Amino acid sequence: MKDASKKSLQLHKKYHGKMEIRSKVPLGSTGDLSIAYTPGVAEVCRMIVGDERLAKTHTIKGNSVAVITDGSAVLGLGNIGPLAGLPVMEGKAILLKRFANVDAFPICLDTQDTQKIIDTIKNISPVFGAIQLEDISAPRCFEIEKRLQKELAIPVLHDDQHSTAVVVLAALINSLRCSVPIYGPSKTPINRHVTQIKIVINGAGAAGIGIARLLIVYGFKNLIILDSQGALYKGRKDLVADKLEIARKTNQAITKGGLAECLKEADVFIGVSKAGLLSEVLIKQMNPKPIIFALANPIPEIMPERAKKAGAFIIATGRSDFPNQINNVLTFPGIFRGALDNNIRFITPAMLIKAAVNLSALVKSPTPIKILPSLFDTKVVKAVARAIK
Amino acid sequence: MKDASKKSLQLHKKYHGKMEIRSKVPLGSTGDLSIAYTPGVAEVCRMIVGDERLAKTHTIKGNSVAVITDGSAVLGLGNIGPLAGLPVMEGKAILLKRFANVDAFPICLDTQDTQKIIDTIKNISPVFGAIQLEDISAPRCFEIEKRLQKELAIPVLHDDQHSTAVVVLAALINSLRCSVPIYGPSKTPINRHVTQIKIVINGAGAAGIGIARLLIVYGFKNLIILDSQGALYKGRKDLVADKLEIARKTNQAITKGGLAECLKEADVFIGVSKAGLLSEVLIKQMNPKPIIFALANPIPEIMPERAKKAGAFIIATGRSDFPNQINNVLTFPGIFRGALDNNIRFITPAMLIKAAVNLSALVKSPTPIKILPSLFDTKVVKAVARAIK
Repeated sequence: MKDASKKSLQLHKKYHGKMEIRSKVPLGSTGDLSIAYTPGVAEVCRMIVGDERLAKTHTIKGNSVAVITDGSAVLGLGNIGPLAGLPVMEGKAILLKRFANVDAFPICLDTQDTQKIIDTIKNISPVFGAIQLEDISAPRCFEIEKRLQKELAIPVLHDDQHSTAVVVLAALINSLRCSVPIYGPSKTPINRHVTQIKIVINGAGAAGIGIARLLIVYGFKNLIILDSQGALYKGRKDLVADKLEIARKTNQAITKGGLAECLKEADVFIGVSKAGLLSEVLIKQMNPKPIIFALANPIPEIMPERAKKAGAFIIATGRSDFPNQINNVLTFPGIFRGALDNNIRFITPAMLIKAAVNLSALVKSPTPIKILPSLFDTKVVKAVARAIK
Repeated sequence: MKDASKKSLQLHKKYHGKMEIRSKVPLGSTGDLSIAYTPGVAEVCRMIVGDERLAKTHTIKGNSVAVITDGSAVLGLGNIGPLAGLPVMEGKAILLKRFANVDAFPICLDTQDTQKIIDTIKNISPVFGAIQLEDISAPRCFEIEKRLQKELAIPVLHDDQHSTAVVVLAALINSLRCSVPIYGPSKTPINRHVTQIKIVINGAGAAGIGIARLLIVYGFKNLIILDSQGALYKGRKDLVADKLEIARKTNQAITKGGLAECLKEADVFIGVSKAGLLSEVLIKQMNPKPIIFALANPIPEIMPERAKKAGAFIIATGRSDFPNQINNVLTFPGIFRGALDNNIRFITPAMLIKAAVNLSALVKSPTPIKILPSLFDTKVVKAVARAIK
């Protein structure tokens, strides 16, 4: 067993999980109890009956987020169910507190039925100021998020789609920034206009679709997205609604086939797929000095040293033990901090793009091995939160 | 506005509610994150897939309780809805932490439909080690608790029914203890055998039914329970299932009518009804030196000074500003501490009776103004928890 795994097991056992719930108010005397609880609390209830907005200022609702999964697509582990997904949700919850002072509670659902998930989340929504959907498999995640956004009065964000997309966009913006001065005009494909840069996204699950959508809104026009059956294109018969929508907006050349066909003359590879799917041979088919984001976890689509050997100019992974970690911890805490503070009803693509731009701007002079700020840079959460309004 | 109300409003506004969620593990470095979160956490997930019992030792599930309401019967305020009920649920949650180190989270449901409440609670149950139902109106509370107990693998307790019942029984045991030496054999009705003592419970909601059931299991045989239409008796046509069940087990003399009829020669009055329903005239119809538990909140069925003037021997209320506060904070923290520690599947009446007996035993020499231990006596939670196994 690897070191982090062993230490993680020990840690979880020692602390019996990772979070606790604490009182913020004194409870040391009968007098304290009569204020925090009965009879005093009745007045707070009465005031909320009169004006429901007071729940936001006088209860946990103003600062609370539910981190909700059905355990269907947890990390790279797949459909492991709600109970086994709990350590990850607890992790998200404590990261929200650590980085953004958000009080988040994990909810692991004992159903994977779309309608039941929606009903359950609506039924428990009064306590929360926002909903973070997490590790719910595609395509159900798209409908669940869309319907909840419509039917709830609080913001709803599917982390896997949007938080990763924001970091990827920030990383891509900075990759392009550090490319130009190094290679000069027309020397490399990276110097192309944003509308010309060819981006191949391998993986059409929640993350791949989320990234594609955000890159399109940002202005990239030359994209191909692949699922396990190959390139998405307008006219492919087996596509579900969300893939079809992406197929219509991408791959204008109607390239068919797999990575070998799609990567020809590509400038950017974004892998949100599986270990080892990218080879040196495939990278050599790309335009010179390509940008490689190999984000499969824990083992990327190609290991950085091999990508570099094949000519990659910038390499990012999902891992903390290589440079350029694409970690959505850079975004989701700030997104929810901003949503709660600014009383946001919907988190829009325009806000997410602004978040990515703000995030990228924190790196004054990006280099191939430094395209993102540190997780522990306290300016990160503020920069992202500022965009969500 | 009264002092406690004003202070409570200020407190809730100042702290934005009363609770927060905190990490118990270090999150100061990339290394910490790789253990508490990815990639290390994946191993904990895998282990739980292999053995679901590990969720109890390696996640918050081993120490977590959901405090769940639908806002239909909050304090004495009635059906104020989920949002307005939240300050009370937050209060319960922090009391569970304060007194029993239980990590409790409030869930306020946006539905009052029995089936939907049951479905929702089942769907969110994986995260929790136990369920505390709270302030759900009768008769739905009975079915919801019964069905959840049957359909979930974790203990479920409706606080209003059972926690109050345990304190009332403890208070009653000690009232009887302090009666005997003072009045001697056959001097007062209080010296009767437990099966002969006549108890009148005014109120047949969750608390009244819960108290009646526990007193019957304990061994009291001479009970009359009244609802707003008067005494429950076998043959009354308008009774729903749970009242009918109680009617069959009580009021063997088939007394009909209201308090005036029922209190004749009664030894004990237990009010879980409304302010001012008990008068001095009515108390004078009871046996000499009666025991009066006037538990309506915040204004009891009769104020202590008036009850005393009418001849009451022992008076208890729900208030902290009079002696003998019947406060279920004495019981629910210990019940859940015991249920979690002892891996209990069902909380049985036998356990609750043991809890009441243990609680009463903490007062070595009860007197008419000291029939219960202090809320802040650290032996309380241990004594109650010891019974839940």
